[in-house]
Amino acid sequence: MTAAGRDAAVLVDVPGGVCAVSGIRAAGIAAGLRPSGKPDLALVAADRTVAAAAVQTTNQVSAMPVRVTARHVADGRARAVLLNAGNANVCTGPDGLAVAQESAVVAAAALDCAPTDILLCSTGVIGVPLAREPLLPAIPRVASALSPDGGAAAARAIMTTDTLAKQAAVRLTDGEAGCVVGGMAKGSGMIAPEMATMLCVLTTDAAAPVTELQPLLAEVVAETFGRITVDGCQSTNDAVVLLATGAAPVGAASLRRALTAVCAELAEQLVRDGEGAERVLHVTVGGARSEADALGVARAIAASALVRTAIAGGDPNWGRVLAAMGAGPVLFDPDRVEVAFGATTVCRGGTVAAFDRPKASAELVGPDVTLRVDLGLGAAEATVLTCDLTHDYIRINAEYTT
Amino acid sequence: MTAAGRDAAVLVDVPGGVCAVSGIRAAGIAAGLRPSGKPDLALVAADRTVAAAAVQTTNQVSAMPVRVTARHVADGRARAVLLNAGNANVCTGPDGLAVAQESAVVAAAALDCAPTDILLCSTGVIGVPLAREPLLPAIPRVASALSPDGGAAAARAIMTTDTLAKQAAVRLTDGEAGCVVGGMAKGSGMIAPEMATMLCVLTTDAAAPVTELQPLLAEVVAETFGRITVDGCQSTNDAVVLLATGAAPVGAASLRRALTAVCAELAEQLVRDGEGAERVLHVTVGGARSEADALGVARAIAASALVRTAIAGGDPNWGRVLAAMGAGPVLFDPDRVEVAFGATTVCRGGTVAAFDRPKASAELVGPDVTLRVDLGLGAAEATVLTCDLTHDYIRINAEYTT
Repeated sequence: MTAAGRDAAVLVDVPGGVCAVSGIRAAGIAAGLRPSGKPDLALVAADRTVAAAAVQTTNQVSAMPVRVTARHVADGRARAVLLNAGNANVCTGPDGLAVAQESAVVAAAALDCAPTDILLCSTGVIGVPLAREPLLPAIPRVASALSPDGGAAAARAIMTTDTLAKQAAVRLTDGEAGCVVGGMAKGSGMIAPEMATMLCVLTTDAAAPVTELQPLLAEVVAETFGRITVDGCQSTNDAVVLLATGAAPVGAASLRRALTAVCAELAEQLVRDGEGAERVLHVTVGGARSEADALGVARAIAASALVRTAIAGGDPNWGRVLAAMGAGPVLFDPDRVEVAFGATTVCRGGTVAAFDRPKASAELVGPDVTLRVDLGLGAAEATVLTCDLTHDYIRINAEYTT
Repeated sequence: MTAAGRDAAVLVDVPGGVCAVSGIRAAGIAAGLRPSGKPDLALVAADRTVAAAAVQTTNQVSAMPVRVTARHVADGRARAVLLNAGNANVCTGPDGLAVAQESAVVAAAALDCAPTDILLCSTGVIGVPLAREPLLPAIPRVASALSPDGGAAAARAIMTTDTLAKQAAVRLTDGEAGCVVGGMAKGSGMIAPEMATMLCVLTTDAAAPVTELQPLLAEVVAETFGRITVDGCQSTNDAVVLLATGAAPVGAASLRRALTAVCAELAEQLVRDGEGAERVLHVTVGGARSEADALGVARAIAASALVRTAIAGGDPNWGRVLAAMGAGPVLFDPDRVEVAFGATTVCRGGTVAAFDRPKASAELVGPDVTLRVDLGLGAAEATVLTCDLTHDYIRINAEYTT
């Protein structure tokens, strides 16, 4: 967890994941969608229909659950989120859409709410029909397993190539007021249609007007999940869904802060568990004319396969960093650029700095590598997280084929 | 070599690479720039100063030889191209620029021409000062080794992570008129600053007005080298240089055709020898509203790490193809998309087609894999070439560190 967006005096970590919020129950079961028999069906439900928002993939090839969720969340209200692993339900035609809709109907019956109050997320293989069996009969089972202690089970049931379940929750106290935000997520490539997709469910007790919730979520997602990359590939199923029970009267600024903390924590967990990842690379670009410029340069660096393989090799290869920056869309002056790995400046004025090579290499040994680029043009700064590109990424995506 | 842009009746392959053109001599020697002692200095020279054009990297971080060449080719004339491997001479500050300029002065003295008639190309490590020794003293040696049979030696002397030297030449006969175009190139990531960069020298006897040569070269490069990708990384040193002796009176259309044939052949050789490549993936997108749309979709597919790892794994994973298309900038209708590997259609109407999986997998076994996408929206088509993403790419770029 980075310090950004947090202050220990008012923001504290709490256990429970999505269930850290009072009135939220969750469950995760093995429905039989995955050949491995691992848990693959999760439900996160509020005790009643509450305020809701969702930010989903902009991929033109969107999954059936993405389409259903877009419609069901349009009124800013929802009761529950039903998530499955093992099948992404995308490129599955009209029958795939029908199965998604039917799953919402079955879940609504189990929870005694309207089908339009059910939001859906799926992750898994693309283009394979999602069978009604064993999915639909398992939905009442996962509903009856709902529990205020079910956060961890739900987080486990959405894992695919993830090696660790991802949860986070914070309590923000601001004088008399305060709120709790909980969350769970799964990665672990930005997309790996066989098995992975980024999904996230957030819960909060904060009371925020429905009209504010959606733009607030969009902003927070852009600043957290929007600033990580694993393989540069965008999923057809990406979704971040928020349920807000409204029990805790708290200002939008406080909710924003707590949401950002949980999303930043989950985003970093996603990168750390990126496919094949051994190291997290924190790319911070400063000295930019604007935050958009800083972000553009940081993204160009983080997207470079050559930078990411250099990190895997423990090589402080600043030349690849400059080459990646230069190929990007943001204009800068190469002669002003400074590059540092950790505390070791390796490039100054666009050319090699006198540096101790063993010391620079030592900056690339641990699980976290910090790369700082200063453009020398202004005061704006932005950070993007990625992971190193290793043999295991190839193994996961090439050798384990359908 | 694909059939595109060629007609055996008038266009035939000839030996000799850059020296296939009368009046062009070449040489390649070991100057001692590479620790391995392999050849690392090449010279391609016309017998006198001739028409010339160059298309170089648009990377903001441009190499010293790129800057010198841009100035020297501005008058549309040149005598020779001096190329070195082992050091890219980029991010090397004012002294790096001075060394480049001095190398042109020394080459000019050896060839008895003006320094501004010498064009320069470099490939190798970024940010390491290019020492005057052993480079400058080796230049008279490579000049005295110039020979009409030196094409292969020159092609070998610019190799870095390339495993094969890359040459091509054609003779175009069009009634009474005709011309020869020769070429050599090196890859083998689009960039791998340690060792690789795309460089290409083309020669021709065609007489074309200087004012036509530069736009013609730019167009041909965009349609050939501009339609391949290995790792999506752009070099600081990329350069395609053309020397035209002017001995053969031939129309611009004929020259264009012969140039396109040689550039397409060299481009395919670059991809086939891309870092870690085991297979060439020919991505053809048809049924598009415009060629620009077709190209945009083909680029999005070819750039996808997940598509490229699927090809490495022999997996006819059309879901990854659709996901990559959908994340791209070109609008299309997913429900009209058809995808075929070789002769096997795997996706129709945006969803899975009934296909024989072993047969589809068999389409991915050989050294060439053909992926055809039909958008069902128009008649325009474009092809982009890439290679599969394998363990060897990681090995070359991560494990072999500086």
